[in-house]
Amino acid sequence: MSESPLVLVHRPPNLNFMDELLSRNYRILNTHTSSDPLPVFLSRQASSVRAFVNIALLKIDADLLSHLPSLQLIVCTSVGTNHVDLAECKRRGIAVTNAGEAFSEDVADFAVGLLISVLRRIPAADRYVRSGNWAKFGNFQLGIKLSGKRVGILGLGSIGSLIAKRLEPFGCIISYNSTCQKQRIPYLYYLDVLSLAANNDVIVLSCALNDQTRHIVNREVMEALGKNGVIINVGRGGLIDEKEMVKCLVDGVIGGAGLDVFEKEPGVPVELFGLDNVVLSPHAAMVTPGSLDNIAQLALANLKALFADQPLISPVRLD
Amino acid sequence: MSESPLVLVHRPPNLNFMDELLSRNYRILNTHTSSDPLPVFLSRQASSVRAFVNIALLKIDADLLSHLPSLQLIVCTSVGTNHVDLAECKRRGIAVTNAGEAFSEDVADFAVGLLISVLRRIPAADRYVRSGNWAKFGNFQLGIKLSGKRVGILGLGSIGSLIAKRLEPFGCIISYNSTCQKQRIPYLYYLDVLSLAANNDVIVLSCALNDQTRHIVNREVMEALGKNGVIINVGRGGLIDEKEMVKCLVDGVIGGAGLDVFEKEPGVPVELFGLDNVVLSPHAAMVTPGSLDNIAQLALANLKALFADQPLISPVRLD
Repeated sequence: MSESPLVLVHRPPNLNFMDELLSRNYRILNTHTSSDPLPVFLSRQASSVRAFVNIALLKIDADLLSHLPSLQLIVCTSVGTNHVDLAECKRRGIAVTNAGEAFSEDVADFAVGLLISVLRRIPAADRYVRSGNWAKFGNFQLGIKLSGKRVGILGLGSIGSLIAKRLEPFGCIISYNSTCQKQRIPYLYYLDVLSLAANNDVIVLSCALNDQTRHIVNREVMEALGKNGVIINVGRGGLIDEKEMVKCLVDGVIGGAGLDVFEKEPGVPVELFGLDNVVLSPHAAMVTPGSLDNIAQLALANLKALFADQPLISPVRLD
Repeated sequence: MSESPLVLVHRPPNLNFMDELLSRNYRILNTHTSSDPLPVFLSRQASSVRAFVNIALLKIDADLLSHLPSLQLIVCTSVGTNHVDLAECKRRGIAVTNAGEAFSEDVADFAVGLLISVLRRIPAADRYVRSGNWAKFGNFQLGIKLSGKRVGILGLGSIGSLIAKRLEPFGCIISYNSTCQKQRIPYLYYLDVLSLAANNDVIVLSCALNDQTRHIVNREVMEALGKNGVIINVGRGGLIDEKEMVKCLVDGVIGGAGLDVFEKEPGVPVELFGLDNVVLSPHAAMVTPGSLDNIAQLALANLKALFADQPLISPVRLD
């Protein structure tokens, strides 16, 4: 019997949820077991690696790929693949899979949680009570009503659709902008993000980050959203011009924001730390045990498909 | 033309949202304008008061009512009327109205917000980022998945029904306990709160506080809910045996809680301030400008109905 395929795994030290499942089926090469710089480690040990499971968002560029001459597949445990050089993968004939819909529910739940938290000021309320200020000063500042709000969703894919579905019974009026208008969707479609922002009280970002969408929410879009407008970002930090967003939040150009993602994670602009109209979260929208289990099963299914020469389960288009 | 009726108003100093609307229509006697103790103030000035608008939760007992010999109506701006001696009102022939459904949507929105905040640890995440710990320590603790959770609602009235409707698209499985089983409701009915807690992951309290429901969530109920169980309370603090709840949260008998109400507001047990699995809020579930406007309009409509000898809009049953 031939030796089982060699699979490279890159993960944060504490995210070991896939280790057992993978090592039961494959020989595993784990980057974090070595103190060598990654290129050195790879050039020494990774020449026969056939698949690469990237848990976290390690940047995979042409240079890194050059150390993996036998690579056939990159398994991303994220939905977005902006950290992978897809053009180089295409040129090399390396397939890429993503998380598909493995954590769409959790991200949609979290987006709604962020939205209610911003409008109704839940973390600020929690701080107010914990600091003893309720007993000292009495009534807390008014929140903003969610029911009836116009919510524009940027990117009506798997996650965006679940967010829309969840917000309907709150009496929210949903509209969207997406790469193209969807068939059989009852929500109003806006041709661009500027008109989406101008015609809504809230915009929710749940689209992919790429050259077309980088800084798609710029100063002009935020001015169109207006002083009572709220941004919820569960996509990628780079979708927003973060420097301008900080100014807009500080100066009251927009009303508030719920942010799970940032341009330079884990870096967060310190100006946000003192604001009560923002809710900050450490890129945690997809992280529950349920989602991690889904991701592990999906990664394994993709690997099995590769080595059985079957169609991949959640392939990413490379054009 | 006869003088317009005298209406007594009791409100916190900062909650002046109804002043203009009321004084446009009636002569107003405002308790907080006097430094006299309330009984003294009332016995001196309130003998011709025909209606009493109680903004906030001032306890109205037989003694206080004895200073209001001409009183015909108490307008409560809350849904719950546990702070009013309804038996004495009945004996005296004083009608009572409540907030009806004026802020049901806001309370339901807030209850869902609290639930997501507890499960997905949103205020804890916000603290983690603001303290700089994300950049220092990396990954944040896993949250708990909402989708698919079994949610038992105690009190399926106006607010409870809206909470159920909002949780359906999250894939939650809804059941309830109420004073009686509802017709044409698809949710499973449990005969008592103990079986509701034993068969659910989450219980949401949205029922009235009265002699039957005081401390309805006791130690036994919390043990039945279990170590992963979560309590959301947007009803009244007295629905829970708070002392036991604190022990259950500290000892891990239950998993977490989202609490907008407490037994001795604005007092909150200090043991809760250090816990990451609770979210605390200063009785703010109903407080948005939208709800306040609804409440003001409803109060005025009830007053107009009284003085025009028409049926009241949101009467409370006095038996």
